[in-house]
This record gives sequence, C-alpha cells and structure tokens, in this order.
Amino acid sequence: MRSSAPERESAATVGDRTEAGLIAIIQSHLAPPPSWLTVGIGDDAAVVEPAKNCLDVLTVDAIVDGIHVDRRFTPPDAIGHRALAVNLSDLAAMGAEPRLALLSLALPPALPCDDFVALVEGLTRLAREHRVHLVGGNLTRTPGPLVVDITASGTVKRRKVLTRSGARPGDEVYVSGGLGAAAAGLGELRAGMWAAQSGAAPVPAAEPTVCARRYLYPEPRVRLGTLLGRNRAATSCVDLSDGLADGVARIAAASGVGITIDADALPIAPAARSWFDASGTDPTSASVTGGDDYELLFTVRPRLRGRLRTVARHCGTTLTRIGVCTSDRQLILRRMRDGVVADLPMPEGYHHFG
Amino acid sequence: MRSSAPERESAATVGDRTEAGLIAIIQSHLAPPPSWLTVGIGDDAAVVEPAKNCLDVLTVDAIVDGIHVDRRFTPPDAIGHRALAVNLSDLAAMGAEPRLALLSLALPPALPCDDFVALVEGLTRLAREHRVHLVGGNLTRTPGPLVVDITASGTVKRRKVLTRSGARPGDEVYVSGGLGAAAAGLGELRAGMWAAQSGAAPVPAAEPTVCARRYLYPEPRVRLGTLLGRNRAATSCVDLSDGLADGVARIAAASGVGITIDADALPIAPAARSWFDASGTDPTSASVTGGDDYELLFTVRPRLRGRLRTVARHCGTTLTRIGVCTSDRQLILRRMRDGVVADLPMPEGYHHFG
Repeated sequence: MRSSAPERESAATVGDRTEAGLIAIIQSHLAPPPSWLTVGIGDDAAVVEPAKNCLDVLTVDAIVDGIHVDRRFTPPDAIGHRALAVNLSDLAAMGAEPRLALLSLALPPALPCDDFVALVEGLTRLAREHRVHLVGGNLTRTPGPLVVDITASGTVKRRKVLTRSGARPGDEVYVSGGLGAAAAGLGELRAGMWAAQSGAAPVPAAEPTVCARRYLYPEPRVRLGTLLGRNRAATSCVDLSDGLADGVARIAAASGVGITIDADALPIAPAARSWFDASGTDPTSASVTGGDDYELLFTVRPRLRGRLRTVARHCGTTLTRIGVCTSDRQLILRRMRDGVVADLPMPEGYHHFG
Repeated sequence: MRSSAPERESAATVGDRTEAGLIAIIQSHLAPPPSWLTVGIGDDAAVVEPAKNCLDVLTVDAIVDGIHVDRRFTPPDAIGHRALAVNLSDLAAMGAEPRLALLSLALPPALPCDDFVALVEGLTRLAREHRVHLVGGNLTRTPGPLVVDITASGTVKRRKVLTRSGARPGDEVYVSGGLGAAAAGLGELRAGMWAAQSGAAPVPAAEPTVCARRYLYPEPRVRLGTLLGRNRAATSCVDLSDGLADGVARIAAASGVGITIDADALPIAPAARSWFDASGTDPTSASVTGGDDYELLFTVRPRLRGRLRTVARHCGTTLTRIGVCTSDRQLILRRMRDGVVADLPMPEGYHHFG
C-alpha cells in the first residue's frame, strides 16, 4: 500500500495528517498495555491501578527545539529519546522505578511526517527498554518551534526515597559514570563533525562519535537510582542535567552543607578529555560546568559505605568518590596535586532565566 | 522595597528573572502542602502518597498562544485558568476527583513579569477552588509562543469510572448547562466588544459579557462528573471541549452506537442565542459545532433514570435530555417541529490536524 506513493509519503508533513492518524502512529509503536492500565489512550484521561504499598513519584520536563536541541545536528529520534530520558533521570535521582509517561506534543504543521515517526521511535524505544508505558497524551499544532513535553511517573517504597536534602558534613560525594562526554559531544557536533540525517538512519561514514552519542542519547541511570534507594545507600541524590557544579550546588543548598570537590578525582571521560585538550579547553572546568551528562551525584555516609559496595556490584556503571560534604557551606574545587583551592566554577548564565 | 522602582518593575520581563525567582512567584501562590505530599516543588520530582482504594486518573493538555488563545482579547489570568480548567474537565468526564497538577511552562523571555504573575494567579485561583495542589513543574524559555502544559491527576473508586464506551442503543443522551455561550463569547471578543487589559484588572466599562466570560473562564463540571461516577448514573461521558457534535461523535465511536440529537431540545444559552441571531448565525448549528463550552455530555440507561435525579439535585447545574442512542451508527440532528432530519454538522476543519 505505502510503496505505491513513496515520494509523496516522504514529503508529507504532520499538517497533512489528522490528529487520529498521528495518534495511530504513536499507538503502533507501543508495547501491549500492562495489566495495571485500566483505561489507556483514546478516552478523556488514562486510568491506572496504583502500585501496591508504594509512593508515586511525578516529574515533568520539556524539550524545546532551538533551546534544548539544535535540529541541524540532532536527529528526530534523539529528540524523542532525550525528552523521555531527562524525565527518567529525574525519577532515578529520587530512587524511583519508572512506570508510565504522558506525552504532550506541540507540532509545527511543517514538521515532516518522517521526523514525527522517528521522534516517536526514539521515545518508544527508550520507553520499552525501561518498561515505561505511554498511557496518554495530547497533540496540538503550534506556530512556533516543536515542544516535546513529557510527564513521567514512577514508584518507590516508603523510606526508600532519595532526596537532595539528606547530606550531612562528613558525607562522601560520589558521581556515576564519566563526566564531560556530553559537553564534548555537543562541541564536536557544533563543530560539524557529524551532520544529522533527517528521519533516515545516519550513513555509516557519518556515525556519531562516542561523545556525540552520549550527548544525543543520554542514558538515564535508572538502575543505579533504584539500587541506591532500595539499599538506603545514599543520603542525598541529584541528577546531572545542568552539570556537576549545578548538582553540587543543589545538594549543598537543600542539605545545608558545603561541598569540596577534588578536581583530580573527577572521572573525566577519556574521549572527552581528548576533545577538550584538542580544542584548547581546560578539561576540569569543562567537565564541572558542562551539562547533559545525566549521571547521578550522591552522598554516602562513610560508615554505610558497605551498602554502596552492594550497589556498585549491580548498577552497571562505575562510581567514583569525588569529594566530601563540609559544615562551612562553601562550594570548593580543590586540586590535590598542586594544592590550589578555588570556588567551584558555575556555568555561564547560570543564574539567568531568559 | 518594591515601590521604590514601580515603573521598572512593571516593565520587567521573565527574561530578566532567574528561574528560582519565577519558581518563588509560583510557590507564593500555592496553598499549604497537603498531608499526602511527601516531597513537593524543589527536588528532582514530587513524591505523593496515593489515595487509598482508588484508581489514579491522569490527563495532559496544552495551551499554545496563537492556537488556543488570542492574547489580543485574552487576559493572562484567563490563560492560566483555561490551562488548568481543560484538564479538570477531562478528569470530570472520567468521574474523577482532581487531586494534583504539574505545570510545564515554555516562556518567551519578552513576556512581561506582570503577565506571568497574572497567569499564575488565574491558574492557582482555580486550583484552590477545586483543592488541586501543584506538586511540581518545569520552566523553560522558548523562541516561540507561550506554551502552558498541565498534567493533572485525580482519583476515582473502582467501578465508578466513567468512560466513552458504555453507551448502548436506547440510552438517553444528556448535556449539562447551556450550549453555545463560549462560541458566542469568542465571537463577541473577536468583534472587539472587550479589549483585554494586559496584567491589570479590567476597567469596569470593559467588563466581559456573560458569554465572553464563559469563553474566557470555562468552569469544569467537576462536581457533576464525580456525582455521575459515584452514583453510577451515566453509561458513558465525555467533556465538550471541541463542541457537541465532536462529543457525540466520540461517544458514538467508542460505544459503537448511533446518536440522534433533537435540535429543539438543545439548551442554547439565551445570551448566546441573542448573539447568534444578531450576527446572522443559525443558533442551532453554532451551538452544535461551537467549542469551549466544557459541559459534560453523557448517556443514561432509561431504567436507571432515578439515579440521575439524585445527581441533578446536587450537581449545581441543569441537565437536559437532548437525544437518544441508536443501533444504526448514524449521527443525526433532528428538528422535531418541522421533522427535518439531517446529518449532525461537524465543525469546519474537524478532520484536519494542521
């Protein structure tokens, strides 16, 4: 059927489609409805059976074209992936197991249908990976840029919730995975190292680098977050959406502590370090201020370090001790080797909304 | 403090503010946190204690400036009101009692701070009225129009859920309140009968008419929806966001029935009829196709009409029988007096997304 008019098909825009047609595309990408979903897509609202003996964790995040993504090098499936990933990362930071999501899309009528399909594919691929079910949503057109707004909900047992506010002086500060890769990847993409293919799979020669991939397809640390919560291994936790310095500041503010970070302990991703070196950027500063890593930053009471070993064995990523909480309320970056102590650098424009 | 620079203050835009400053404005408008809110605004996600022995009902809806609202005659508090009202209306259509909301705002940096405050006021006023608590949200800037995206959640007892799919041939079709007022109000506003005052309270001479008020500040039928659900009085229900004809079509499609509407029974709001007559529009067509009434359309099994009387006594609005479900799958508008039978007119552009 479809092959009879492939050219017209690929040139079609969402403005040519009915709302029902676009919803049908989304539904065709969903896993079968879980048993707890009483009423799914197609009524005024979704109805779900709550998880037994759990608290609900709820978060919302939006991706705006031109603000959070640059379409010149971000393929549409990466937009869909990111929109869900940033929400799953928030749930992970609370120790919650993700369960469901609602998708609200503001679509420019000129958006190619192929891009719409790719966006839905990127989103639903990640959803299936984490067994998150899309239970509802909303489609509207917009005279402005594409906006992908996702509300995600997860579950967590009582007293297993991670917050930002439980750190105490003396607690050790840890970070998962590697830092700076997403910032380096964004730098590479901006420098034109990889041109995104609209809708289509990237041609082999144009495969994104390791860092570019980390930027385009962030991996929320869902397993680590739930393990930290279940084992009560962390006294506080935050996800690194806006960089390490931002995360440190948020835990410090919420917990009423200071934090000293050891610059030499930072797990800067090797590929990121190469990029920063090659582009004349200080790897430490770039890794501290660069966003989009979506690693977890958390604090551990030294006497409960045994619990962290259990987590480390099963979480599927490295965990690195990078600092300590202090009672003086200051945010410090200390270079151990040369003894230089400085304020933790904050990203440019950090305090400004517009 | 603030009075020292009132002119600069009133000219301020959200782009001049920090994200924390804008969040503080929102928080200053919230009611004290309810006991079921374990973690509120200020962490990676909200944590809530689920309601006992209830199902969760979830919905999301977006208001896009230039698509759903026209800033030339829509004051910012009406935008905030509408963004929440459309979601509460969806919950009402499921028989759910609203409980919480998450707010995701895409803000153009040039938006005046006064408009932002008024938007928040309109939203939180309606939230307090329905005891809905804002548990979280997200702020981002946008190079495009203002987008107000709200996810709302409510609760409903098992077997008290209203859906679109339970209507059977022979069921009677009812609608709440009056029809056409919002469409007439939009017509009046477009005709320049009332110029909105940005941010400020409207001057007395420019008070909106009854119809304009119905358009600008839709009242979700929350009490009616929960009563219909609790009393199991309705076999199906939908809210009228896109007009009566659209609602009729949705119940018919989901339930697998036809519906015949009696044109002469339609409860066209008197003020709307006057406006339609004066502007040379057929009041019946305009009331059938006009959107934004946010009334509830529902079906009742004739032998259970007694349950509806209980609902009618306590729901605070009129309920009018306007038609019947049939087995022939057709959507019919019948004029009783002259016996003219025609297809139910659908709004223009009904099937088109863009």
